[in-house]
Amino acid sequence: MNEKRLGRQSVRLQRPPCIAASASVVGKLEGEGPLGASFDEVSDDAYFGEASWEKAESTMLRRCVALACGKAERTAQQLQYILAGDLLNQCAGSAYALRSSGVPFFGLYGACSTMAESLSLGAMLIDGGFADTVCAATSSHFCSSERQFRFPLEYGGVRPPSAQWTVTGAGALILQAEGAPPYVTHVTTGRIADPGVTDAANMGAAMAQAAYDTLSAHFADTGRTPEDYDLIVTGDLGSIGRELVIDLFAYDGVELASRYQDCGVMIFDAERQDVHAGGSGCGCSASVLCGHLLTEMKRGTYRRILFAATGALMSPTTSQQGESIPGICHAVSLDMDRGC
Amino acid sequence: MNEKRLGRQSVRLQRPPCIAASASVVGKLEGEGPLGASFDEVSDDAYFGEASWEKAESTMLRRCVALACGKAERTAQQLQYILAGDLLNQCAGSAYALRSSGVPFFGLYGACSTMAESLSLGAMLIDGGFADTVCAATSSHFCSSERQFRFPLEYGGVRPPSAQWTVTGAGALILQAEGAPPYVTHVTTGRIADPGVTDAANMGAAMAQAAYDTLSAHFADTGRTPEDYDLIVTGDLGSIGRELVIDLFAYDGVELASRYQDCGVMIFDAERQDVHAGGSGCGCSASVLCGHLLTEMKRGTYRRILFAATGALMSPTTSQQGESIPGICHAVSLDMDRGC
Repeated sequence: MNEKRLGRQSVRLQRPPCIAASASVVGKLEGEGPLGASFDEVSDDAYFGEASWEKAESTMLRRCVALACGKAERTAQQLQYILAGDLLNQCAGSAYALRSSGVPFFGLYGACSTMAESLSLGAMLIDGGFADTVCAATSSHFCSSERQFRFPLEYGGVRPPSAQWTVTGAGALILQAEGAPPYVTHVTTGRIADPGVTDAANMGAAMAQAAYDTLSAHFADTGRTPEDYDLIVTGDLGSIGRELVIDLFAYDGVELASRYQDCGVMIFDAERQDVHAGGSGCGCSASVLCGHLLTEMKRGTYRRILFAATGALMSPTTSQQGESIPGICHAVSLDMDRGC
Repeated sequence: MNEKRLGRQSVRLQRPPCIAASASVVGKLEGEGPLGASFDEVSDDAYFGEASWEKAESTMLRRCVALACGKAERTAQQLQYILAGDLLNQCAGSAYALRSSGVPFFGLYGACSTMAESLSLGAMLIDGGFADTVCAATSSHFCSSERQFRFPLEYGGVRPPSAQWTVTGAGALILQAEGAPPYVTHVTTGRIADPGVTDAANMGAAMAQAAYDTLSAHFADTGRTPEDYDLIVTGDLGSIGRELVIDLFAYDGVELASRYQDCGVMIFDAERQDVHAGGSGCGCSASVLCGHLLTEMKRGTYRRILFAATGALMSPTTSQQGESIPGICHAVSLDMDRGC
């Protein structure tokens, strides 16, 4: 009945929108990591000039959206929608970042999968004929996350080796109906997967099943194989979750490792930076996509990427009540060739 | 360039999707209110058989989605997307409600505007050709909200007269590409408005500006006037917010009161039930829409409704940091006539 639908979870965009511009703003630690040079702004001040970490996160995201608009030569007035969300309770990071933007706003909550969720819905709004120009954005901040989800920073809690480090970072991109590559060609929307992991200090393990499910659905729905991609990149599974995804595909006889990476592994240097299992947070995959990956696509390093951001949908309350951690993963195909 | 777009904030759906079915599940107090008979299920047990109020909220929402699917004669397997969110930190209410659904899931955060947000995006996904059948749903629970946003229930805090009562309720509806009325014909997406109200016990005042802005944008974008609607209904401004919206339109010379109501006012009996300024919470407008309003449309009481759910986008943390309360309002035109 529907020519855009592919299988259970995927759609093919009829007139793939382009990513006209993207921007990233990160903190000091992220700036010192292997991708440091790819970010538009690195702030040495964790407060971003504000009086609290929550306000800092909003300011970081607001600056990032403004940078993306500037690069796309678009004013906020020319944006037809902004889709954004973050990890703070009630998604206050994005609401306060964008409250003066004057742009019609769809608030999202996909935990660390938010960049892929906003990109998915933004691309569909354009391909559906509802908009010509849309901004997709998200952020996370180590300090605002740490005290909300874990302990007061001053407490200096010891973290187990499986724990990940919430990235201080924001990513924003401008989607347009027409323009130069890269294009968003396919969207595979995740279903919630809960393999029963209850350890909130091992998010990679909790989210790996969701990543495997969504990537598998993408390949089944589109008829593609991992070899059709120059890079398959998950959101922020970190080193443990990444290994699990490789193992899960190995059980299916699929070799993934050679073309598969994870934003949480890429953003920090495990040898040099003390981040345990890697980076996490909405800002992790967002800044890696909007900083490093899209730049490398434009440089010709990658012709086709499958960007699959992952999120853990628990809250401190559900963890305290003994619940396991549901995960989700949304995947988006990015292509230098529109006609695929 | 784009024939679906109307003005700055609105779109007209080309092939308006229908609301094939809707369901509502509420708590005891809501069942005793003036709309009690319109809800599908009323639970005398605030725990819905669960061990915590958070789990209760998830169970209520899960039951509501199942009821809506049953009425539409659709299995979860036939839903192409679920769009849902709630007030709990990290939107845990909807994530845990739907983690076993097996349906591609877009998590939203629009505070108490979530029913209109999920309805907006769901209708656009269908009209855009990405799906034939979509579920839009949301919930709130007095007890889980009260202890998260305010005080432990056992404390018995005294509430000022401007405070609203969070509705224990869930609403879910099934959107389809083809079917019987009512239809979703127009979507007006809200911009964040922050008039500077800092009193978290006066949400109606904080959100009234957003409601006024979105309703005004809807009239300007579509060329319609209040007289084109049998009913204009805001989300949960309560009695104070509703009066403010009437006043704001009166300054423009527009008489709204005669055809304007608010879900927070409708759901409780101010004389008989001690809820101060009225109902609030995502479940308020959701249960009033999915229970009362859609039933009355099918009965012929209303031919055309403008459903404009409102949300306050603050968090307890932002309030503690002295921030004012940003509001948002998303409006959706519901019509028994598809060809408008």
